[in-house]
Amino acid sequence: MSLSIRNQISGTVLSVTPGEVMATVRVRLDGGQEITAAITLEAVKELGFAEGAAVRTLVKSTEVALATGAVDGLSIRNRLPGTVTDVTTGGAMAGVKVAVAGGELTAAITRDAAEDLGLAPGAEVTALVKSTEIALAAV
Amino acid sequence: MSLSIRNQISGTVLSVTPGEVMATVRVRLDGGQEITAAITLEAVKELGFAEGAAVRTLVKSTEVALATGAVDGLSIRNRLPGTVTDVTTGGAMAGVKVAVAGGELTAAITRDAAEDLGLAPGAEVTALVKSTEIALAAV
Amino acid sequence: MSLSIRNQISGTVLSVTPGEVMATVRVRLDGGQEITAAITLEAVKELGFAEGAAVRTLVKSTEVALATGAVDGLSIRNRLPGTVTDVTTGGAMAGVKVAVAGGELTAAITRDAAEDLGLAPGAEVTALVKSTEIALAAV
Repeated sequence: MSLSIRNQISGTVLSVTPGEVMATVRVRLDGGQEITAAITLEAVKELGFAEGAAVRTLVKSTEVALATGAVDGLSIRNRLPGTVTDVTTGGAMAGVKVAVAGGELTAAITRDAAEDLGLAPGAEVTALVKSTEIALAAV
Repeated sequence: MSLSIRNQISGTVLSVTPGEVMATVRVRLDGGQEITAAITLEAVKELGFAEGAAVRTLVKSTEVALATGAVDGLSIRNRLPGTVTDVTTGGAMAGVKVAVAGGELTAAITRDAAEDLGLAPGAEVTALVKSTEIALAAV
Repeated sequence: MSLSIRNQISGTVLSVTPGEVMATVRVRLDGGQEITAAITLEAVKELGFAEGAAVRTLVKSTEVALATGAVDGLSIRNRLPGTVTDVTTGGAMAGVKVAVAGGELTAAITRDAAEDLGLAPGAEVTALVKSTEIALAAV
């Protein structure tokens, strides 16, 4: 299966915390970062996600935000530091590529945001992704 | 690849409208509904999506909203009428299963929303999904 | 129309910036805040959104992040300062209600995030929403 989802980074499940409806799954990415995915409990059960399982984390480009400064006191669990490698600008949106440890991310943000942040190749950024926006694939 | 993404409905690409960064892809689902996915232009090119291509539409449960009445004047492009088949309630969230033409959807909404709407098996609802929340897989 | 989408705040369109497939719509909320929605150009055309139009902004709870400190250098366009009024905790997720000028927001975040940020009634927070997560309804 070939997916339109641009952001796919491999990792290993560290832990699973089940709720009644949702579950949070901690994953250590191959680049060393730790991320949290909030997925349905049903998906966890069907796919048998458990400690040690090899997974791929999937994030749509429209779900990736970028920060240029320090990130503190934020509910967004997932923060991947990286360096901008490319910026493509359209009429309303901009596509920003970010090299992170273990892979590359694409963020689709508004053109205004890209301009306000002065994003250009070489810029240091932190990619931010809400836990509810991360899907997992068993590999 | 087994995905945590609960909602996967097969369909056929009707048209692709490219922008500079994003593209919108119209898909007719096997159940007859038409949906629009806003994905990166890069994904369209790499996966070769074009009229007639067989695809699977993928939507995370957390991206599905539900409406119980008529839906008018709403920017959300994708509206799948269906019937609630199951509601699971947790402390903060609720998982709602909806039978639609051609398949089944799961919506992860707040418990408050499920209660306020009086969702229970048999309820007629319309599942709503923003175009930016739909990913496509080549099949 | 009864929607599961918890967050609905009324406002007035300030401007529309069309791209080829997406458009950004600036809205001044009744509480005075300005927000940006990135929706499909098709939706803008069909609904006739233009300067002065009365709209309702719609955001799913799972799309709202919360920050307790200063928010700088962030690509997320929409930042609504407010005060936590209620926190409901489930096994994996937490629902946080935030009073903002002109209304109330619900954020569905991970329980871990709610605990790490020490969210409790009275806490001052900024609600953050990516532009791609905001839908608009004509009113």
